[in-house]
Amino acid sequence: MTCTLFELRAADGRAFSPFCWRARMALAHKGVEPALRAVRFCDIADIGHGATTVPVLLDEDAVVRDSWDIAIHLDQRWPDRPPLLPTEGDRRMAQFVHQWTVTQLHLPIFKIIAADIWDALDAQDQPYFRASREKRLNATLESVRNVQAGNLAQLRANLAPLRGVFSTQAFLGGAQPLYADYIVFGALQWARVVGQVKLLDGDDAVSQWFERCLDLHEGLGRREPAGV
Amino acid sequence: MTCTLFELRAADGRAFSPFCWRARMALAHKGVEPALRAVRFCDIADIGHGATTVPVLLDEDAVVRDSWDIAIHLDQRWPDRPPLLPTEGDRRMAQFVHQWTVTQLHLPIFKIIAADIWDALDAQDQPYFRASREKRLNATLESVRNVQAGNLAQLRANLAPLRGVFSTQAFLGGAQPLYADYIVFGALQWARVVGQVKLLDGDDAVSQWFERCLDLHEGLGRREPAGV
Repeated sequence: MTCTLFELRAADGRAFSPFCWRARMALAHKGVEPALRAVRFCDIADIGHGATTVPVLLDEDAVVRDSWDIAIHLDQRWPDRPPLLPTEGDRRMAQFVHQWTVTQLHLPIFKIIAADIWDALDAQDQPYFRASREKRLNATLESVRNVQAGNLAQLRANLAPLRGVFSTQAFLGGAQPLYADYIVFGALQWARVVGQVKLLDGDDAVSQWFERCLDLHEGLGRREPAGV
Repeated sequence: MTCTLFELRAADGRAFSPFCWRARMALAHKGVEPALRAVRFCDIADIGHGATTVPVLLDEDAVVRDSWDIAIHLDQRWPDRPPLLPTEGDRRMAQFVHQWTVTQLHLPIFKIIAADIWDALDAQDQPYFRASREKRLNATLESVRNVQAGNLAQLRANLAPLRGVFSTQAFLGGAQPLYADYIVFGALQWARVVGQVKLLDGDDAVSQWFERCLDLHEGLGRREPAGV
């Protein structure tokens, strides 16, 4: 009854992809321990099954190629275990939180850590990453590192909605985490593992929530060594 | 079986408060037609019942003093009518959308329209509004009007999560609006009614969603005349 999760890794083996962390936390939430298969960007096509991105989950006959679909799949496959998306409203929430995360968090975080990611990648991955990301940024990786302060200020401002939520509850899911928490967690774990910059002050409510997430599932997130 | 909604009005009688619009749309969603009572800032204490803000809903014996509590009240009072918050997940979502709206939308919108609000207010309200809001802004109302372009660009950037959501569904609630839609609607209706600036281009997915909201409940929102 083993399932296999293909996930992106840095040259030293650390898992850093925000979307792969969504999948890892979702699996742990359901009490499923997958076999982990490390891939580099240059290996993704070798996964087969039409994979062009990671994470990819192989679960018996199922091939699930997207972190959102993995969450849906896990709730369907294990209906008696703690739900990731207990209600239709939680699906709506997770979709909104996803759109918020990719536009308001991933973008400034990516600019903050882009050069750090390149430093951490396997040499086989570096040329692809530099070419594709510099095209996306319309700037060199090093030049965005030089304007880090502005992106850091933007990120901290963009996190304001979470501070309001965490003033009255421990997780986006309420007293316990749900899939929406893992969506945001992935973004900050990406920066924690591979970035060389501390994003938040320790007294920030978002930082305190992130520490709670690092403790979840027997410290799954915390076991991955931090970049700084 | 009449209930009464106290709501903020401009000198010419137009309803503009974002929180009052949440309540108006929520009442219409439940098919409840309240008696409307116009108040100015300087009248709020006269409502009684400990009111210090609007909206305030009087519904038989109940006094409901906050837009969120009004939504909760209406779903409890009319459980057989279309729900505003059908699941626990929708409550979680509405809380996050509320925090997102007040920090990421209200703040730039307020800076864009602050001087327009002052222009629209009854003369009795103007001194209070100017003093309290200039203290909050740490600037004169006129000086924030002069940096409108930057606040407009910030607002448009902050709306990005909605564009992703509306690429696959008509409302935050899915095919039909829910309370989360009315939270965001209130922010844009505030600017539509009292502001002198067009916030969004017509081809923006957020603008198209807002037009759909203006059509809801027999054009309730659209019947309120726009500032421009």
